[in-house]
Amino acid sequence: MILSADTAVSSSDWNKLDLCSCITAETYEPFCSHTFQINKWEKDGQVSRELWEKAGQQGLLGVAIAEKHGGIGADILSSAVVWEEQMYVNCTGPGFSLHSDIVMPYIANYGTEEQIKRFIPQMVAGKCIGAIAMTEPGAGSDLQGVRTYAKKDGSDWILNGSKTFITNGWMCDVVIVVTVTNREARSPAHGISLFLVENGTKGFNKGRKLNKIGLKAQDTAELFFEDVRLPASALLGKENKGFYYLMAELPQERLVIADLALASCEFMFEETRDYVRQRKAFGKTVAHLQTVQHKLAEMKTNICVGRAFLDNCLQLHSEKRLDSPTASMAKYWASDLQNSVATQCVQLHGGSGYMWEYPIAKAFVDARVQPIYGGTNEIMKELIAREIVGDN
Amino acid sequence: MILSADTAVSSSDWNKLDLCSCITAETYEPFCSHTFQINKWEKDGQVSRELWEKAGQQGLLGVAIAEKHGGIGADILSSAVVWEEQMYVNCTGPGFSLHSDIVMPYIANYGTEEQIKRFIPQMVAGKCIGAIAMTEPGAGSDLQGVRTYAKKDGSDWILNGSKTFITNGWMCDVVIVVTVTNREARSPAHGISLFLVENGTKGFNKGRKLNKIGLKAQDTAELFFEDVRLPASALLGKENKGFYYLMAELPQERLVIADLALASCEFMFEETRDYVRQRKAFGKTVAHLQTVQHKLAEMKTNICVGRAFLDNCLQLHSEKRLDSPTASMAKYWASDLQNSVATQCVQLHGGSGYMWEYPIAKAFVDARVQPIYGGTNEIMKELIAREIVGDN
Amino acid sequence: MILSADTAVSSSDWNKLDLCSCITAETYEPFCSHTFQINKWEKDGQVSRELWEKAGQQGLLGVAIAEKHGGIGADILSSAVVWEEQMYVNCTGPGFSLHSDIVMPYIANYGTEEQIKRFIPQMVAGKCIGAIAMTEPGAGSDLQGVRTYAKKDGSDWILNGSKTFITNGWMCDVVIVVTVTNREARSPAHGISLFLVENGTKGFNKGRKLNKIGLKAQDTAELFFEDVRLPASALLGKENKGFYYLMAELPQERLVIADLALASCEFMFEETRDYVRQRKAFGKTVAHLQTVQHKLAEMKTNICVGRAFLDNCLQLHSEKRLDSPTASMAKYWASDLQNSVATQCVQLHGGSGYMWEYPIAKAFVDARVQPIYGGTNEIMKELIAREIVGDN
Amino acid sequence: MILSADTAVSSSDWNKLDLCSCITAETYEPFCSHTFQINKWEKDGQVSRELWEKAGQQGLLGVAIAEKHGGIGADILSSAVVWEEQMYVNCTGPGFSLHSDIVMPYIANYGTEEQIKRFIPQMVAGKCIGAIAMTEPGAGSDLQGVRTYAKKDGSDWILNGSKTFITNGWMCDVVIVVTVTNREARSPAHGISLFLVENGTKGFNKGRKLNKIGLKAQDTAELFFEDVRLPASALLGKENKGFYYLMAELPQERLVIADLALASCEFMFEETRDYVRQRKAFGKTVAHLQTVQHKLAEMKTNICVGRAFLDNCLQLHSEKRLDSPTASMAKYWASDLQNSVATQCVQLHGGSGYMWEYPIAKAFVDARVQPIYGGTNEIMKELIAREIVGDN
Repeated sequence: MILSADTAVSSSDWNKLDLCSCITAETYEPFCSHTFQINKWEKDGQVSRELWEKAGQQGLLGVAIAEKHGGIGADILSSAVVWEEQMYVNCTGPGFSLHSDIVMPYIANYGTEEQIKRFIPQMVAGKCIGAIAMTEPGAGSDLQGVRTYAKKDGSDWILNGSKTFITNGWMCDVVIVVTVTNREARSPAHGISLFLVENGTKGFNKGRKLNKIGLKAQDTAELFFEDVRLPASALLGKENKGFYYLMAELPQERLVIADLALASCEFMFEETRDYVRQRKAFGKTVAHLQTVQHKLAEMKTNICVGRAFLDNCLQLHSEKRLDSPTASMAKYWASDLQNSVATQCVQLHGGSGYMWEYPIAKAFVDARVQPIYGGTNEIMKELIAREIVGDN
Repeated sequence: MILSADTAVSSSDWNKLDLCSCITAETYEPFCSHTFQINKWEKDGQVSRELWEKAGQQGLLGVAIAEKHGGIGADILSSAVVWEEQMYVNCTGPGFSLHSDIVMPYIANYGTEEQIKRFIPQMVAGKCIGAIAMTEPGAGSDLQGVRTYAKKDGSDWILNGSKTFITNGWMCDVVIVVTVTNREARSPAHGISLFLVENGTKGFNKGRKLNKIGLKAQDTAELFFEDVRLPASALLGKENKGFYYLMAELPQERLVIADLALASCEFMFEETRDYVRQRKAFGKTVAHLQTVQHKLAEMKTNICVGRAFLDNCLQLHSEKRLDSPTASMAKYWASDLQNSVATQCVQLHGGSGYMWEYPIAKAFVDARVQPIYGGTNEIMKELIAREIVGDN
Repeated sequence: MILSADTAVSSSDWNKLDLCSCITAETYEPFCSHTFQINKWEKDGQVSRELWEKAGQQGLLGVAIAEKHGGIGADILSSAVVWEEQMYVNCTGPGFSLHSDIVMPYIANYGTEEQIKRFIPQMVAGKCIGAIAMTEPGAGSDLQGVRTYAKKDGSDWILNGSKTFITNGWMCDVVIVVTVTNREARSPAHGISLFLVENGTKGFNKGRKLNKIGLKAQDTAELFFEDVRLPASALLGKENKGFYYLMAELPQERLVIADLALASCEFMFEETRDYVRQRKAFGKTVAHLQTVQHKLAEMKTNICVGRAFLDNCLQLHSEKRLDSPTASMAKYWASDLQNSVATQCVQLHGGSGYMWEYPIAKAFVDARVQPIYGGTNEIMKELIAREIVGDN
Repeated sequence: MILSADTAVSSSDWNKLDLCSCITAETYEPFCSHTFQINKWEKDGQVSRELWEKAGQQGLLGVAIAEKHGGIGADILSSAVVWEEQMYVNCTGPGFSLHSDIVMPYIANYGTEEQIKRFIPQMVAGKCIGAIAMTEPGAGSDLQGVRTYAKKDGSDWILNGSKTFITNGWMCDVVIVVTVTNREARSPAHGISLFLVENGTKGFNKGRKLNKIGLKAQDTAELFFEDVRLPASALLGKENKGFYYLMAELPQERLVIADLALASCEFMFEETRDYVRQRKAFGKTVAHLQTVQHKLAEMKTNICVGRAFLDNCLQLHSEKRLDSPTASMAKYWASDLQNSVATQCVQLHGGSGYMWEYPIAKAFVDARVQPIYGGTNEIMKELIAREIVGDN
């Protein structure tokens, strides 16, 4: 079932992968027939609602959410298959992994029975698209910088603030909003809460789809909250406990990004291997050149080394043993590799690599955000270093 | 007059540059007032004709072409000011440097009096836009791979073939076409000629503006030649001597790319320095962080080191002493640096760096083509190595 | 004493020590009490005979050789413990891993019963030191370049030639000599045989202990063979099959080097972590500096990533599933990392890092040979690339 | 004998040799006939006194010290020839550059007439060897950490403390000691003085020659000062002004290191080029391999780029226009390049590169200290960053 069970090192894995079980290539194929719309999605700056529902019908959403909560009930390794398969078709528009494995766990893990019932089945069906809103203009990955504030008003809350760089931001039906609820807390860690805000709530406005270097079919957006009145039932988990929930869930977010990164590397490598083997220059294939061969050998080695690590992390995580610094390592290392591989693969494509019609061009521009979001790689290093040097 | 006379090392150059003489910032300013159209240009995939004519009026085109040929009559160092100033406003759409310092020299150096009279003054005026067509689909930087062929027919020529990745390809009024004229030559070097093909010539068609990772306002295009009948007067220089002309002119092309690369580095560095000095994180400016400071120090050092080399090359070239391997060094080293600086500067911008509205995002995507065109950096290394190892 | 105890941020699986049954830290301790002689060994350019015998008594030699052949009868994972523990005490003088896991397998796998009986028990006891002689002056890692030649003379062989860079070369009691036996073979692959040559054989002379950048206590030497008459029983395996034996055994040699490299990284990291946590600069510990923290985080991440890969390789190898390109990946990647970590750790030690008395200085100079011997890393890339591009 | 003759691909300006008037290759030749003693020097851990005197006779010491002070009276560019020529024969033992261009300027610039007369002529003659003692055990490049203290006693001073990593430390006849003279100063900058301490002064003891990774013929040593009574005339410059003198002189020290680094790169490149052109592998020369050619091209390019920068710095310094951050750039960039080139050149030598008898092996180990001494490269980045971010 683990797509990547031993991809790193055994020789049968030198070629493209068609593994998995509950989620198989057969499951994935019909879903991929949608990919003919990638150009349209890119033009629209978003995918279609229909795609989300189709994905839901195929059982691709909420794979790792427990059945009792309305999820598919498989494990995180099965979810990883969905992440990886999506990268293997070079399709970054649909924010499925964020929806299924970053947003839904907050609801499943910290939600009331009522909240779970209200959202999870709809999310599994692809009828309710989820997002999470942490970053604010001017605050980056720094939770100390959160300004969005919810003030108690009777049993209700009045929410004000704005968020930016929100994946699924334009299409989302529900968004988890990271909010200050106690400005007097002795540290941000003690004054943050999470709220579930639904599309259509008065005062909740979506700004615009952001024009980005890549991820052209991804509806990243700004969100604005102006005197949004929220009922008590909108609070997710306990008041002022939001920071702890974030700390508990962020490792999985980082693991998702890392595995997407590795899978993209695997895609780009195969794409490029095919290209240099057919492309001619100076009377021979480009793959014939020794410098190209060594470049391929170096990339492949880095990818295999990284895959062994990622599979190790996935395994540990499936056993609830993945700690925060290790997840941070995976996120930073894999996303850096992705960018290094992307830039080399573009180069090996020559002029074609710069042309939008070539998959490698999209893979390159899409890669660039990975070391930035989900906590910049610099933040990752801070977290790792803290473990290394302790109180120094 | 040398924009970069001592930019590398003297401390007054730590900040932005406003130097030059015949071409001054004052000359450049009014031209830059056009830059409010960058968004439109990007949307259109090309700049406006009006811009070209305005540039001509400002004396920004053909700066280094001799007065007797109808050029401005300044030297290559003055031309470099135009290249650099354009990068300092982060504007890659207009293909001025290609037009002025890559295309025009072929005409001025190898053209007949009649050809010079016909094209140069119009090109200086921005009324005739020039391009040069080397690369073919399936051939890359390899002149051995040229398939475009002109067959003699009386005193005329019949031209057939296609070209791709042509800068200024969509807007060009005249294009120099690298063409095989002797298929029996014992090597491509002895069977290639150059032709001047004018827009509107029967059988000469422009394919489409290519959709690229960056250079969104640059009208890069494919060109098709189908039984294009050319008069003897369309031949540029002597029959079968094209390869030698290319060898003679390519060092200047590489120098142009290298200097554009360095100037872009200088722009990106300043842009990023400004950003991290005002951006706050964790209660202080980002510039306050030691890791950011060292990153800036490393980038600045590389830029200063590169600037010293580039200025050395420019000086040598102005004395006709720049040889081909040194130009190749400049092209590969500077364009690699540009990409390294670009990716680091994006990172230092955090999420904003990925947003199209930030200049650094454009500088990043524009940078990616520089190690590819004008002879890939791998080709550059071949040329350098040949000098090093000789006949080994 | 086990240095790697917490080097793997999250998982005890990441270090090999619990895989070992017969070899434990307790076994290793007494052996390490010898390390007080490292300075003497370095001065002598070799370790003592006594050390080898002591190691034999401790059961540290021939760990993975089958009991039926006179070995310890544990598996390769247990052998790996010996490799790693030796690096954790930064002691590169004794060529145990070469002796036990590179030389002995040739005898155990291809030797006659008589040869096995003659050598293996003595080698396990540390009374017979083994070496293998491939490289020749002027031939490097290229088996095509082997000039050493054995000519048949009745049932005997007459061996002539010379070898260089031979680990354990000065102290060895028996050396496996890679020799051409058929100069007419259509390729070197079909004309190479292995011979067991014992110290004291007439015409077999040892040149001198080579003066190297590092590995100061390792008795690397040149060997000379001048009309050495060898009986038929000196032939190891079949005539002209030597190339195939080498191909079969080289992956394990590469794995040994790779694991030594990773273990050295783990050692150097801990050594450096300790150093920067106690060393003061500018009123604080060096570990307090953000740039130092990020450097540590980067090194630690690379080490953990590499460790996951190495452990994967070790596991595959213990299941006889490690293929040649994967072993080549491990060798090149890990030995490159070792050098990168070494040079950074020296830097973090400041001036002390350059002083011989600091362990990091030795680790640095010892590291430098790892990308060179056992097949240069460039050869590794050739082998990997061959698998990637096939017949291109 | 001039190795750099064609290292600069295009331009004779790129080497310094024609800048030199009084010092020519002809001057240098006889001096180099001494190099047959390198092996002896390495064994001794120091060069001979005779060498120093011979160097003095040849006019190689104090080249840039004004004639009126007893120096040779040439300029810094001529001194650079001496630095570079020494690297071109790969000879790091004799600490001439430190003596001539780091120590002597303090005396010439801040000494009394009496001090100048006493020391300079003797130093120019090679009869008095100079050193400077900044670093202390436990303090590194941090002047705030200086503990060595001179207490006033009448008109005398009583000096106590210890210094380490002192180049020329064992052989020196006079050493400039950086000393705290005012423990109450509001910052170290206001409480440091320099003293001239002569060999043989009571209480001044030399510890031992340090055993280093490289620089084996350089007599780096520890120095101890125990109640050393110094007359008022031992004070160099004004009391408590030492910090300012250091700030004024350190840029030249950094420039010396940078130029030595570049010259060593030039040496190593030529050495390696020669090696790969004659060394055979797989039936051809190593230089024939495309990967080797690109590696050479990359190294050569970096060296040429660096040389342009260094020559620019030298020129600026000869005009008294070299500022501190630019000197820091040169020091860090060039010494990093030196190590990168060294490690690659060793690799291109294969096994031979690890053998002490090959010049590249020595060049490699000698290189490693350059990013450390003279202010670590990390300190350099601090100084550069300070200029970039100002008060942020």
